[in-house]
Amino acid sequence: MDRIPILRMGGFLLVTIQVDLYDRLALTLENDLMAMVSKMEARGVLIDISAVSIVDSFMGRILGNIASMSRIMDAETVVVGMQPAVAITLVELGLTLAGVHTALNVEMGMELLRKKIGPIPDNEEDLYDDII
Amino acid sequence: MDRIPILRMGGFLLVTIQVDLYDRLALTLENDLMAMVSKMEARGVLIDISAVSIVDSFMGRILGNIASMSRIMDAETVVVGMQPAVAITLVELGLTLAGVHTALNVEMGMELLRKKIGPIPDNEEDLYDDII
Repeated sequence: MDRIPILRMGGFLLVTIQVDLYDRLALTLENDLMAMVSKMEARGVLIDISAVSIVDSFMGRILGNIASMSRIMDAETVVVGMQPAVAITLVELGLTLAGVHTALNVEMGMELLRKKIGPIPDNEEDLYDDII
Repeated sequence: MDRIPILRMGGFLLVTIQVDLYDRLALTLENDLMAMVSKMEARGVLIDISAVSIVDSFMGRILGNIASMSRIMDAETVVVGMQPAVAITLVELGLTLAGVHTALNVEMGMELLRKKIGPIPDNEEDLYDDII
């Protein structure tokens, strides 16, 4: 496992984190994600962490980093699918994921992104229609 | 890692396979997926294998099983993101993934599913609109 796949869904990118993030993998993910945002002109990034049951400060920092990097690239980041236990642990660790948007699941995350990004320009409508 | 997360996207389910499938994990995935198809009344299943670089006959059989099970549950299965090397290996192994639809990426897979499933009933339109 040398990299986490990034899926393109319309104007958004979707990443599902299923394995423990170690230094090198996290760095590769950050690089790949920013390259994809730039290449695909993506306006939103969805990070699904529904498979993550244990979270530590490193994971919290990586999520924050990705959100900050994306914002500079003019893309919003939404973390979706957080397990209740993970939310509890994060707050107990003192990590509030400042600057990171969250939503309950992928669909709600997409809805949130759509609201944040605002109306889609006409020439992109077709692209968005294609993914339903 | 005890289970692979299944994401709901409109009327479809999306699974990203990032780790080696061993017996128990594959069995859990089959069970979870069929339970989700039933619960969500999903008409399509997308399996992304872009992170899979090594494929064997076991993986081929699991994909075939999932497609057959889904079909009985009235859902179509599309395998997306296959790496060229994986396609070459599959054919060299004599596995043609009969009964499994394939598409180049998630967007094309969704397009294929939409064509196969046919027009979406009126009462489901809103649901599909929500995910863009």
